[in-house]
Amino acid sequence: MSRDELSDLLEEQQSLHAELKARGGKLDITRGKPSPRQLDLSRELLSITVPVHAADGQDVRNYGGAKGLPEIRAIFADLLGVDVDHILAADNSSLSIMHDLLSYAMLHRIHGATEPWGRQEIKFIAPVPGYDRHFAICEHLGIEMVPVEMGEHGPDMDEVEALAADPSVKGMWVVPMYANPDGVIYDEETARRLVSMPAAPDFRIWWDNAYALHHLTDAQPRPLPILQMAQQAGHPDRVFEFASTSKITFAGDGVAFLASSTGNLDWYLSHAGIRSIGPDKVNQLRHATYLKDAEGVRALMRRHRELLAPKFAIVEKILGNRLGGTGVARWTHPSGGYFVTLDVLDGTASRVVALAKEAGIALTPAGASHPLHRDPHDRTIRLAPSFPSEGELAAAMDGVATCVLVAAAEKLLG
Amino acid sequence: MSRDELSDLLEEQQSLHAELKARGGKLDITRGKPSPRQLDLSRELLSITVPVHAADGQDVRNYGGAKGLPEIRAIFADLLGVDVDHILAADNSSLSIMHDLLSYAMLHRIHGATEPWGRQEIKFIAPVPGYDRHFAICEHLGIEMVPVEMGEHGPDMDEVEALAADPSVKGMWVVPMYANPDGVIYDEETARRLVSMPAAPDFRIWWDNAYALHHLTDAQPRPLPILQMAQQAGHPDRVFEFASTSKITFAGDGVAFLASSTGNLDWYLSHAGIRSIGPDKVNQLRHATYLKDAEGVRALMRRHRELLAPKFAIVEKILGNRLGGTGVARWTHPSGGYFVTLDVLDGTASRVVALAKEAGIALTPAGASHPLHRDPHDRTIRLAPSFPSEGELAAAMDGVATCVLVAAAEKLLG
Repeated sequence: MSRDELSDLLEEQQSLHAELKARGGKLDITRGKPSPRQLDLSRELLSITVPVHAADGQDVRNYGGAKGLPEIRAIFADLLGVDVDHILAADNSSLSIMHDLLSYAMLHRIHGATEPWGRQEIKFIAPVPGYDRHFAICEHLGIEMVPVEMGEHGPDMDEVEALAADPSVKGMWVVPMYANPDGVIYDEETARRLVSMPAAPDFRIWWDNAYALHHLTDAQPRPLPILQMAQQAGHPDRVFEFASTSKITFAGDGVAFLASSTGNLDWYLSHAGIRSIGPDKVNQLRHATYLKDAEGVRALMRRHRELLAPKFAIVEKILGNRLGGTGVARWTHPSGGYFVTLDVLDGTASRVVALAKEAGIALTPAGASHPLHRDPHDRTIRLAPSFPSEGELAAAMDGVATCVLVAAAEKLLG
Repeated sequence: MSRDELSDLLEEQQSLHAELKARGGKLDITRGKPSPRQLDLSRELLSITVPVHAADGQDVRNYGGAKGLPEIRAIFADLLGVDVDHILAADNSSLSIMHDLLSYAMLHRIHGATEPWGRQEIKFIAPVPGYDRHFAICEHLGIEMVPVEMGEHGPDMDEVEALAADPSVKGMWVVPMYANPDGVIYDEETARRLVSMPAAPDFRIWWDNAYALHHLTDAQPRPLPILQMAQQAGHPDRVFEFASTSKITFAGDGVAFLASSTGNLDWYLSHAGIRSIGPDKVNQLRHATYLKDAEGVRALMRRHRELLAPKFAIVEKILGNRLGGTGVARWTHPSGGYFVTLDVLDGTASRVVALAKEAGIALTPAGASHPLHRDPHDRTIRLAPSFPSEGELAAAMDGVATCVLVAAAEKLLG
C-alpha cells in the first residue's frame, strides 16, 4: 500500500471508529466466563436433592473427609485418565489449589527442597502467551518468571530444558490442552520431554487441565496420561494436575481437583488439613448426583460446544472478512478452550485496546498474557467470545477489527 | 481418705473399668461435631431451590463477587452487630480464613508491619486452655505461642498487657463467647482492655466468634461490638472477627465470615483475589434463602439448644453423681458452646485418656488444649457431648468418671 492508500484507509476506519464511539455501546470480551445460556444447561443443580450419605456411608453434612468424596473423584479420575487414589476433590476453585501449593512451598519444605522456597531466589518457567492469573500468583509472591515462546505443540523445549537445568528454577506453568490463550495442545513428545528432563529435585509442573474436556470440534484428543508418563520417566512427583467443574457446571460454585503422586497429595493434605477441617462434601455429592459419570460430563460438554462453537465461528468470520490478507493481524483457530489469540502489528496492541475502550469495547489489557504484563512486542490480545450473545460478539469483533486497522495505519504512517 | 480406703476405691473402680473393657464398646466424644439430629434440622438445605440472581442482580452461577453476597452478609452483620460494609462472606470454613490471614501476613506485609512476619521471630498470645486447631496453625508455621491462663471472664489481662508490650508479639487467639473448651464469656472490661492496650502496630486479635449464637440457657448475651470498641479505642485494625454457619446449618458445607475494618478487609481481599476468582455464591444464596434473616438463625439455634442442652445436663449429672465431692475433679458448667472442660487430679489427664481408650472411649488427647500439646499440669480434658446419642453419652461419661477415679487413686497411692 502506498502512503496515500494508507491515509485513505486510516480515514475510513477512523470514521467507523467515530461511529462506534457515537453509538455509546458497552461490550465486554475480557474474561473467559460461561454465558447465561451455558449456565442454564445445569439449572437442575440449583434444585436437585442431595442425599445425606455418600456411597461410602459418610454423612456429607458433617466435618471431615479431606480427600473428597470417592464418587466425584471417580468421575474426574475417569475423565483425566488417572487412578482414583491419585486424585482429590476440594472446594470451588482450582486456582486456589494452585495458589496454596505454591504458598505452602514458600513457607514449608516441599519434598526434594533443602529449605522453603520463600528463603531462596527461585524462578518459574512461563510459556507465553499464558494465563494472567497464573502469572499473578508468581508476581504476588515475588517469584521471577522466565518467559518462553510457545510453538505449535507447546513451548520451545530446547529452551525449557536449558532453563530447567538451573537448580533455582523450581516450577513451570502449563495449560496442556487448548492453552489459555492460544489454544495450543501440548503433544506427547513435548510432554515426554517435560517429565523426563533433568531438573531440581523440588521442580514441579503446574499442569492446569482447565479445558481438557472443552472441545469445539470433532477432533477430541484425550488428556495425556501425564502422571503415568512422569512415573515412567522416573519423576513421579514432577506434576501437579488440576481440573474443575467451573466451565462445566457453574463458574466458581463447583468442585476443583488435584491429581498427583501419593507423595505430593500427602504433602498437600498435611498442610490443607491445618487450613481446614475438610471440603464442602454436600456440593461434591450434589455434583456427583447431577453429573452421574464421565459420560454425563461428556454429554454436557457437547451441549456447551453447541453454544460455543458458533461464537468462535463468528470471531473467525469477522476477523477473516475484515483483516484477512491485510498482513497486520493473525489469529488462532482453536479447536477447544475459551479463547482466541489475536496478534496485531508489533507495537500496536496497547493502542488497539485503548481505541476499543473509547468505542465501548472492553478487551483484556494488552500485556495480560505475559509475566508482569509486559509483552515485549506489544502485539498479543486475548479475545474471550464465550460470555456475550452472538449479536454482541459480532458487534464487538467488528469494532475490534476497526481498531486494529486504525492502529496499524497510524503506526505505518509513522 | 486413708490408704486402705483408697485401695478399696481403686479396686472397686478397676473392676468397673475391667467390665467396660470386657464389654468392648466404642464411644467417641473427641470432637465438637453436630449430631445427625442437629443436621436434620436443616434438611431443607439439601433440596431448596436457589434463585439464579442475587438481590443486587448478579448471576450467582458465574465468577466474581469477592466480598460475598450482600444478603448473606446482612444476616450475619445483624447477628454479630457489625456494619454490613465491614463483613465479607467467603467459602465453607472460617478456620481457612484465619489460616490464610496468618499465611498472608507471613509472606506479605500486613499494614503496620515493617516486613513480612515470616522474616521475623514473632509470637502469639495463646489463652489456655484453648482451641487445638488455632494452636496447630501457629505450630505449623513455627510461630511461638505464649500461654496465658484463663480466668472467669477471659485471660489474665495484666499478663496479656505485659506480653503485648513486646513488639515481637503480633497476634492473639480469642474465642470470646463460650470459649473452646472452657465456656468462658469474655466480659466487656476484658474486651476493652484488649482493644485499648498498647501493642505493635501490626498486632492483631483473631476474634473467633464460632459460638456467638450457640446458647444453652436463657442467659443469651449479645456478641460484644468489638469492631466499634476497637475503633473507639483508636485501634480500628486490631481485630479480625470470624463466624460461620458450620454449627448452624451443616458442618464444613456452609458459609464463613470475616468482619473487620475496611483497611483489613481490603488487605485480605488484595491477597484472596489472587488466590481465587470469588467464593461459592450459589451456596451463599442457598443459605440466605434458607435462613431468611437474623431471626431465622436465632429460631434455628433454639432448636439446636433443645437437642444440645439435655446432653450437657447428662454430663453435669453423671460427673456430679460420680465425682462430686471427691476433690479429684472439677468441671465447667457452660451456658453455651460445644464443650465441657474437665480438670482432673494434676498429672493424671494422660492416664485418664489412656484408660478411657482401653475402655473403648475416645477422648480428645490430653494436652490438646495447650500449645504444642503440652499441658504443664497434665490435668485438662475436653469433653464434646454434641455428637453421640444421649444413651451413648451417658455410657461414655460414666466410663470417663471411672477412669478419673482409677487414675486419681493410682496417683494418690503413689
